Amino acid sequence: MIKVGIVGGTGYTGAELLRLLAGHPAANVVTITSRTQKGVPVAQLYPNLRGIVDLPFTDPDIDKLSECDVVFFATPHGVAQRTVPAILAMGTKVIDLSADFRIRDIALWEKWYGQTHVAPGLVSRAVYGLPEYHRDAICRADLIACPGCYPTSVQLGLLPLLEAGCIDLNDIIANSASGVSGAGRQANVANLLSETSDSFKAYGASGHRHLPEIEQGLAEVAGAPVNLTFVPHLLPINRGIHSTIYADLIDTDVDVQRLFEERYADEPFVDVLPAGSHPETRSVRGSNFCRIAVHRPGNGRKVVVLVVEDNLAKGASGQAIQCMNLMFKLSEMAGLNLPGLVP
Amino acid sequence: MIKVGIVGGTGYTGAELLRLLAGHPAANVVTITSRTQKGVPVAQLYPNLRGIVDLPFTDPDIDKLSECDVVFFATPHGVAQRTVPAILAMGTKVIDLSADFRIRDIALWEKWYGQTHVAPGLVSRAVYGLPEYHRDAICRADLIACPGCYPTSVQLGLLPLLEAGCIDLNDIIANSASGVSGAGRQANVANLLSETSDSFKAYGASGHRHLPEIEQGLAEVAGAPVNLTFVPHLLPINRGIHSTIYADLIDTDVDVQRLFEERYADEPFVDVLPAGSHPETRSVRGSNFCRIAVHRPGNGRKVVVLVVEDNLAKGASGQAIQCMNLMFKLSEMAGLNLPGLVP
Amino acid sequence: MIKVGIVGGTGYTGAELLRLLAGHPAANVVTITSRTQKGVPVAQLYPNLRGIVDLPFTDPDIDKLSECDVVFFATPHGVAQRTVPAILAMGTKVIDLSADFRIRDIALWEKWYGQTHVAPGLVSRAVYGLPEYHRDAICRADLIACPGCYPTSVQLGLLPLLEAGCIDLNDIIANSASGVSGAGRQANVANLLSETSDSFKAYGASGHRHLPEIEQGLAEVAGAPVNLTFVPHLLPINRGIHSTIYADLIDTDVDVQRLFEERYADEPFVDVLPAGSHPETRSVRGSNFCRIAVHRPGNGRKVVVLVVEDNLAKGASGQAIQCMNLMFKLSEMAGLNLPGLVP
Amino acid sequence: MIKVGIVGGTGYTGAELLRLLAGHPAANVVTITSRTQKGVPVAQLYPNLRGIVDLPFTDPDIDKLSECDVVFFATPHGVAQRTVPAILAMGTKVIDLSADFRIRDIALWEKWYGQTHVAPGLVSRAVYGLPEYHRDAICRADLIACPGCYPTSVQLGLLPLLEAGCIDLNDIIANSASGVSGAGRQANVANLLSETSDSFKAYGASGHRHLPEIEQGLAEVAGAPVNLTFVPHLLPINRGIHSTIYADLIDTDVDVQRLFEERYADEPFVDVLPAGSHPETRSVRGSNFCRIAVHRPGNGRKVVVLVVEDNLAKGASGQAIQCMNLMFKLSEMAGLNLPGLVP
Repeated sequence: MIKVGIVGGTGYTGAELLRLLAGHPAANVVTITSRTQKGVPVAQLYPNLRGIVDLPFTDPDIDKLSECDVVFFATPHGVAQRTVPAILAMGTKVIDLSADFRIRDIALWEKWYGQTHVAPGLVSRAVYGLPEYHRDAICRADLIACPGCYPTSVQLGLLPLLEAGCIDLNDIIANSASGVSGAGRQANVANLLSETSDSFKAYGASGHRHLPEIEQGLAEVAGAPVNLTFVPHLLPINRGIHSTIYADLIDTDVDVQRLFEERYADEPFVDVLPAGSHPETRSVRGSNFCRIAVHRPGNGRKVVVLVVEDNLAKGASGQAIQCMNLMFKLSEMAGLNLPGLVP
Repeated sequence: MIKVGIVGGTGYTGAELLRLLAGHPAANVVTITSRTQKGVPVAQLYPNLRGIVDLPFTDPDIDKLSECDVVFFATPHGVAQRTVPAILAMGTKVIDLSADFRIRDIALWEKWYGQTHVAPGLVSRAVYGLPEYHRDAICRADLIACPGCYPTSVQLGLLPLLEAGCIDLNDIIANSASGVSGAGRQANVANLLSETSDSFKAYGASGHRHLPEIEQGLAEVAGAPVNLTFVPHLLPINRGIHSTIYADLIDTDVDVQRLFEERYADEPFVDVLPAGSHPETRSVRGSNFCRIAVHRPGNGRKVVVLVVEDNLAKGASGQAIQCMNLMFKLSEMAGLNLPGLVP
Repeated sequence: MIKVGIVGGTGYTGAELLRLLAGHPAANVVTITSRTQKGVPVAQLYPNLRGIVDLPFTDPDIDKLSECDVVFFATPHGVAQRTVPAILAMGTKVIDLSADFRIRDIALWEKWYGQTHVAPGLVSRAVYGLPEYHRDAICRADLIACPGCYPTSVQLGLLPLLEAGCIDLNDIIANSASGVSGAGRQANVANLLSETSDSFKAYGASGHRHLPEIEQGLAEVAGAPVNLTFVPHLLPINRGIHSTIYADLIDTDVDVQRLFEERYADEPFVDVLPAGSHPETRSVRGSNFCRIAVHRPGNGRKVVVLVVEDNLAKGASGQAIQCMNLMFKLSEMAGLNLPGLVP
Repeated sequence: MIKVGIVGGTGYTGAELLRLLAGHPAANVVTITSRTQKGVPVAQLYPNLRGIVDLPFTDPDIDKLSECDVVFFATPHGVAQRTVPAILAMGTKVIDLSADFRIRDIALWEKWYGQTHVAPGLVSRAVYGLPEYHRDAICRADLIACPGCYPTSVQLGLLPLLEAGCIDLNDIIANSASGVSGAGRQANVANLLSETSDSFKAYGASGHRHLPEIEQGLAEVAGAPVNLTFVPHLLPINRGIHSTIYADLIDTDVDVQRLFEERYADEPFVDVLPAGSHPETRSVRGSNFCRIAVHRPGNGRKVVVLVVEDNLAKGASGQAIQCMNLMFKLSEMAGLNLPGLVP
């Protein structure tokens, strides 16, 4: 059994790691840390884990973490970079769910995250944990930078088109919407049920942190800069991201349905729906699947890609475990073969 | 007092007409029809109207309707066109909330609505009930074709840009989302709470009935054909439409914020938010206001317009009453000056 | 026009006062205070009030408040009692929405609210603002203690039975459920959408602050102590309280339906539904109505009363305005004759 | 591997059986029937099962069903009784999720379900599938009548008290609330999102089908008739039942917390929370656990029991699988050890 540590386990991605790893056949969480909840049983904070997870939160301790085979960081941005070097130095692998190692351009990272990066040397060592594009590198990595939730959905929705070189890189639009859990488990008036339920709005329309991350990923696939307009929205739901992506075909003879089906034929977690479909976020609720449908309204130049994922699963903790499975030569689906919870 | 009749009062737009007209200082609903609920008090079907509305549903009767000053049709598409000619002939004005008289090209209407139009001669007589563009004609009209819910939001979001001639007409995108009440009060598995709550999806991505209506309206303003990509989505909320509109500026020197503020300065129901804002659908819940914010991500070529309205109010019954106010020389805000219900 | 001041206007009851008073024909809000939001336009915090309310928050100032005819306190418990004496001394009437003057037994208040009462002498001067029982006293009062949201629903549900003396006072159960807005507009993890939506739970099952208030009110009506078991629950909705009340008839010959209908025949805001009905909270969403249905399962000894109200309207700000109307000899329904927002 | 058949697989309990059995280590669904969806892949109706379940719906066929080791009936009331005799005759075990075999008194069943029972002789052969009370009989049974969703929660909440003989049997109240999925996947205006969301109501307050089933179960445990008042309510959530049960202790010295803890100490799916707790329905979302807390307000005579379960899991399909595990001598938790999905 792989010994797993989790740093920063009180948030939703930490709880989701625990939920998913509880059913993992080859991994075992041995330590989970939280400074504020030290000594408190995990199942007291998350009663859904009563009878399933029997660990208390502990203070973060490098020595204890280093006894793990792998440590997940489910911490706010800026935290992992302070501890990861010491853990890597002890030979323990690290999977970071925060944004600390996602962006290669340190200055760009510092601009969007408003802080100085204290471990810039590690950024190039980190592998971006999108198995559908970086699988081989993930298998060999000891430090994974897990993609953000929005970036996962947008990149998976564009990968086949970019690889085929059939869309205009100068004008791509990603109109995305996320459930409120994406904002984390923090006291914040803006995310109260009374502020968000029975309502809908955009946010960050003039600029959002995930934009540079997405553009970096798309440019890498395209081999050229990509100009993306990205507008996130807040859905009155718990979990789920839906991205509606608009691009212009430069080759209108391409069969986009077939392109997507072939590109993802061997991907265990990317499900291309039949032509004419519209994926629902609930179809991946609690599941690591990403579902995609492709449309060409009026059979014209515009291609519309619809992508759904669970922001806490494929958009965070599920994808992190998928990376772990690859790093430890396990079945990629180990512990992750759960259907979405419907209804 | 203006005597009002309502045909087809059992659906949500009928109930919304009743709710709003109950507080109207100069109009009085005297008859409301429903074949299926004949004899049943309105307040039995809609207990929120107990003590407010004291009418029973009756069978539709031309003579009785003709005693009204104005008759609202809140009927399924295809119904109004059968009765409206007789009512108009008796000198009673008509405000139709269905799609029957919205589209000038009869063949186009027949294609999208799947039926033969039985009163094509009336279509050109009908005035499209968008006061922000057709106010003068509405004042003189005896037949109003109320805009669809999505079309209202998209047209209001583009009007200033089109009138200023500052955007590329070849590539406009309207990414819209509506609450479930937009689907009406009909037994339908797809709209059960268990099918729609805690979820989100697109629908009609390859083509939706509102597309030709929107394109017709935009082309009229622009004075040239407009190429629109329109993708509607289903929100797990009761009321509310949010449209996120993307267009390319051909003149990047234009001050879009000022453009919108000036265009709508005298409009009683269109509220342009300060720069940097993001309107929420709940801010117009139950209200006839439409709120708009304009963004230019990275100060580039792309302009992003965010529009919210209540699909049953400004998107249907509220706008219909606004038209009535104009037709009868009342204050345009009469009975409609309600703030959104928050929280 | 009555000049109205509001102290503590940033919370939901303050915003609801503004929403309702905006449509009031005879009252005008002239000042609204908030220390933290001083200088900020109200409509910036509550964009639904844009174009409706044009006031900024100001620092609380006794002189300015004393120029008002009446001041509403929409402040946390313990605040009003510090300022009210000075305002009353200037001849301005006060309507307090907090719990400060609700409980006559000062020691009991101090126990449940965990603080020392600093104006105990005013408690007996305050009139409990439940018009259905204290209308005459309210008309003559200069200090109103508005009932809590749960207490309003439970007392209205039991009033006819207690006055008729037909139920056992030793064993009454009120199983109540409230929307999340009842917890106020405060940063609190427990009330995040991600913590409360798509879920349901009881809270305070072993004791809740509203219990002594309800028992005081019931005992006054009954003329004897009443033993109540009160269990509140948290609903994943914005607004609305539903109380399911269980009592044992000591006289099983009583016609409870008729009892309720007769008791509330002249009450403008209490609506007794036909036998066999089940009121929905949405039927009073945004409305000052309280709807009640009475059942006798199996026609036995047990009477089940179902009561719905909007916790922010009849349960707080609406009832406060109803009291104001009485205190100033206005029509009791002035500004409050709004139907519930459905759907 | 146990060969499983499912009759009537298009509803929510059928889909839940598929979801849970897909992860079962020792059972395999080999046939699933639906007359209306014959030939349609299950995953077309339930896209969350794409890549997980690869079966089409087929016409019900006795021969094929008889090749199964066990057949689940997830059919409307009245259907199973017509087919079950033939299947049992072929030596295949049956687990019926409908009400057909729950009530021993045939006349009582016929009264509440409004039809004639066509297989009354089988009713006494059926074992009531509540493992916490009938485990031994379930192990030996070939026909299981799965308890209703409400009845499961109410019986589990009262079992320890009834067995201990410490409450008054003449006056027990179960105030229950269920998510909308309990109403099934049927076209019905009353269960539209626009009719149920952001709202709450009681229903069946004067009598509900589950009352006789619950009373039968409670009486069997108590060894005497029990007088129950049962009022169900409709929650605007997908899944989840919450029962708030009120009973009067006849022995006030009993330690109810300890009583519950000891009674359920060895039960794999009943989790008694620490004193002072309030279980949330979401803690069992998608899970077979039932969570219970016990309160004694004011330490008095009244005991309040709070019970949560997922109506589709422990309230239907999960419990059915738990019975199957017992009937086939598998680990009782096989395939069911899933935590609730939070958030």
